[in-house]
Amino acid sequence: MTRGSDDMSGYGGSVPVRVTGASRAAKGGAIGVLIRSIGTSKNRYAHTGSVRYEEAVPKVPVAALSNPDADLLERLVSRGSPVRVRFRLDCRTLENVETANIVGEVLGREKPDEVVVLSGHIDSWDLGTGAIDDAAGCGMAIEAARLIGSLPRRPLRTVRVVLFANEENGLAGGHAYARQHAAELGRHAGVMEADSGTGRPIGFAWNADPSARPIIGALAKLLAPIGATKMEAGGYGGADISPLSTSDVPLFGLRQDTSTYFDYHHTQNDTFDKIEPESMRKATAALAVWAYVVADLPEGLPRGRIEKK
Amino acid sequence: MTRGSDDMSGYGGSVPVRVTGASRAAKGGAIGVLIRSIGTSKNRYAHTGSVRYEEAVPKVPVAALSNPDADLLERLVSRGSPVRVRFRLDCRTLENVETANIVGEVLGREKPDEVVVLSGHIDSWDLGTGAIDDAAGCGMAIEAARLIGSLPRRPLRTVRVVLFANEENGLAGGHAYARQHAAELGRHAGVMEADSGTGRPIGFAWNADPSARPIIGALAKLLAPIGATKMEAGGYGGADISPLSTSDVPLFGLRQDTSTYFDYHHTQNDTFDKIEPESMRKATAALAVWAYVVADLPEGLPRGRIEKK
Repeated sequence: MTRGSDDMSGYGGSVPVRVTGASRAAKGGAIGVLIRSIGTSKNRYAHTGSVRYEEAVPKVPVAALSNPDADLLERLVSRGSPVRVRFRLDCRTLENVETANIVGEVLGREKPDEVVVLSGHIDSWDLGTGAIDDAAGCGMAIEAARLIGSLPRRPLRTVRVVLFANEENGLAGGHAYARQHAAELGRHAGVMEADSGTGRPIGFAWNADPSARPIIGALAKLLAPIGATKMEAGGYGGADISPLSTSDVPLFGLRQDTSTYFDYHHTQNDTFDKIEPESMRKATAALAVWAYVVADLPEGLPRGRIEKK
Repeated sequence: MTRGSDDMSGYGGSVPVRVTGASRAAKGGAIGVLIRSIGTSKNRYAHTGSVRYEEAVPKVPVAALSNPDADLLERLVSRGSPVRVRFRLDCRTLENVETANIVGEVLGREKPDEVVVLSGHIDSWDLGTGAIDDAAGCGMAIEAARLIGSLPRRPLRTVRVVLFANEENGLAGGHAYARQHAAELGRHAGVMEADSGTGRPIGFAWNADPSARPIIGALAKLLAPIGATKMEAGGYGGADISPLSTSDVPLFGLRQDTSTYFDYHHTQNDTFDKIEPESMRKATAALAVWAYVVADLPEGLPRGRIEKK
């Protein structure tokens, strides 16, 4: 998940400190920048993420400290004792290599050329293994499509699973998809991304024509038994599908309980044991219901955009 | 806290795997040993501790893996895929250096030569900073003595705070205390160690003459308002004071809620932010009440030993 996400209270507001901090501090004469991790963990793992250097400014090293270590540094500084910090960083930008989106389909029974997309991203930030960001989303998208494929009656349209490459480092997979499928976007009935971890589903963000609202309301009713009823209008659903926001394709983002998400996200601690199976089952059900309904609407969802207030 | 502790369910039973595992495996031809951490954390920190090599057996390297990493290795092995592990260890035994116990006293009003000891240990296992093992115990012992010293009426006997050196690596501080104070042990009315972290107090372990039971029961009543009523007969109170178990000095160990203790103990994660202030306040109160009562008993506690069943 990238900084564009808008349902993680505090994250979006804090991330610019990391992304732009190095160049801003360098302009003031800093030779290095150390920030408190933009994460909620009490563990001694630094939460890390992208940094952007301005062109004409010296590229000073920037590092994140875990919260406990930042606490320690604060205590030392507040005592007035001289504090000396040594940076030992081995992060670097490697040459680009070719990767690929992974695409699979459950063909629709009447309109196989029209598609509904369930997606996540297969790359992960370094340090951890990416279990919650975003193997969880990929696993749920695949499983939701498998469930639909195993039903006696398939929906009208095709359900396509897209596992995007390179979310973390520039959305190359998402941009490539938008480019390569440009001619086909008119036959995209809806695109969903799941990229908020392993928590229980609370609903969807949606962006289509405002006249889609009654259908969205009906979806919320269907999902009431698992509590995924919050339907949030606006936005672009997810980072990988944001390149589609200039089209009129209805965009959706799975919303989940993210109260522990930033304990693990972009740290060494994003590992398989953090997966919550019961919540994943519910979130998968929400994706399957969404995909079946949207793929089976005779007229499709009203296409268009709501501008987020 | 060392492996001798007996109120941490599972810990005492599992530790021999780590302590003796290397030599046992080497006898069977192993060239290295990797164990799952003997700890409860879901984080990717290895829980570490002492290893003992047998004399005539090759000293093979032994390392601990965090639980998530052990899970991963298990999954790989269970798939039947070839698994290759590279050991990179930089642990080593350094030369001994001289350290010292730290001792302070609040003098008794009538029998200043008789002492009641409140103790913890100032050294810590490496990796973390030792906030819960055992800065917590040291802090509580000091604060309990300070509280007693600030009262308008001091107890009959002296309250002595002893912060032992070298608990982790052989109990040198505890052995030195027992040796240097051998002539004075008859004037030790009671010795308490606090070395179970930062959790709320649940009571004491005690070892004295069985006829002390009514006094112990009265202590439990005094501590009922903070829930520290569990009085457990037997044992030797704590690792640092265990060298006193061959004497007849009444020995005590503070018992605390240790349900999260092994999430942090002997890992990089044993840092100040893990301290629970409210629980520490209660545990400090329990120590202060214990010390005042034992230091103020006109006849002192009945001296002797209960053999633990």
